[in-house]
Amino acid sequence: MLRKVCFFKTLTPREINQILSIARLKRYKSGDLVFMKEDIGNNFFIVKSGRIKIYTSIGSEKKKTFAFLKKGDFFGEMSLLGGKVRSASARAVEESELLVISKNNFKELIRQSPDFTLKLLYTLANRLNKTDKEIESMLFHNILGRLAEAIIDLTKDNHAKIIKIAIDQNELAEYMGTTRVPVCRAINTLKRSGVIEYRRGELTVLSMDKLRSISGNAV
Amino acid sequence: MLRKVCFFKTLTPREINQILSIARLKRYKSGDLVFMKEDIGNNFFIVKSGRIKIYTSIGSEKKKTFAFLKKGDFFGEMSLLGGKVRSASARAVEESELLVISKNNFKELIRQSPDFTLKLLYTLANRLNKTDKEIESMLFHNILGRLAEAIIDLTKDNHAKIIKIAIDQNELAEYMGTTRVPVCRAINTLKRSGVIEYRRGELTVLSMDKLRSISGNAV
Repeated sequence: MLRKVCFFKTLTPREINQILSIARLKRYKSGDLVFMKEDIGNNFFIVKSGRIKIYTSIGSEKKKTFAFLKKGDFFGEMSLLGGKVRSASARAVEESELLVISKNNFKELIRQSPDFTLKLLYTLANRLNKTDKEIESMLFHNILGRLAEAIIDLTKDNHAKIIKIAIDQNELAEYMGTTRVPVCRAINTLKRSGVIEYRRGELTVLSMDKLRSISGNAV
Repeated sequence: MLRKVCFFKTLTPREINQILSIARLKRYKSGDLVFMKEDIGNNFFIVKSGRIKIYTSIGSEKKKTFAFLKKGDFFGEMSLLGGKVRSASARAVEESELLVISKNNFKELIRQSPDFTLKLLYTLANRLNKTDKEIESMLFHNILGRLAEAIIDLTKDNHAKIIKIAIDQNELAEYMGTTRVPVCRAINTLKRSGVIEYRRGELTVLSMDKLRSISGNAV
């Protein structure tokens, strides 16, 4: 089973068994909190099924979604690697199953499994690249470019011929760290230009090329 | 010698020798480019002396400094861990010496030195934490809070009794990803409130507590 989860593809059967032997399975209902920003971090998590939102908020008004994680993704490593307290909150946005690994077992795993550690390293470098790009985008782009980037990012693992994602305007706004009204306007602009279709919380990409060119990441 | 460089503190003598045997030393004058954003990345760098600025720019106008790196810091790992092209530019801002390690040797090092890899992992987690905080700060804070955060960040390795840094207003503005005029105003506000002193490119922290409270990171 676990071989199918992308995180485990690079691991040997021995390493997969090692992870399973030290992880416990925990189930979450949609809306359940996994941990909250500023909590002391004691566990590392691998998503076995479902969808987890990583986000931060200040007060009750402003929210910023850093990522939606799904099967094979992991999270919670940051406060185990130095930070101590959680730098963001994690919440299940669907019914989800997580493999939970304690801090001590996580450190043991790093020491004993070079492939696990390499995978961690690649993922962190990747996420760092993404956040650097996001900072750039916030500084240098207008809202249209940022929306285009957010859509590209949210659909990047989607290899279907017609790319659709289910996301409402509030979720999109939080992903971009902004409010609903400008996002709504930008969506309408992209609709009118024939770049996307958006109806009842479902966004369809009509032209990925145009989207890339608007985002400034044309190839 | 190398034992004194903080990056190497956690490494065994054998590992340090391994690094020295595969690295070549390269010297840079102040202002020299180490690599440019979008270059193909073929090397990993450790700062032996001097100061390196990691930054990005769009057009010739807007710039954003991600970090100033000094003795013992490393950079260039990101395009060796997946990305291929450099996600930012690197330039010497003082006369600097760098230990240069090729992509193949870097990957060999990861495979063979668990302590080197762990150190990489901790540093990436740390940088990720910092960029996440920066995104938060850009979204949730006004310019005064962002300036306070930038000053705290730039002085965090400074353990002198009176904390001073040499940085001009343009550098500060680029570090914050904004322009000089609002930064200049914010500096004056902090000066008037007795939080900092700023004269001839030298900034002195008068009250770290006040600075923390303005940044929203009071303890």
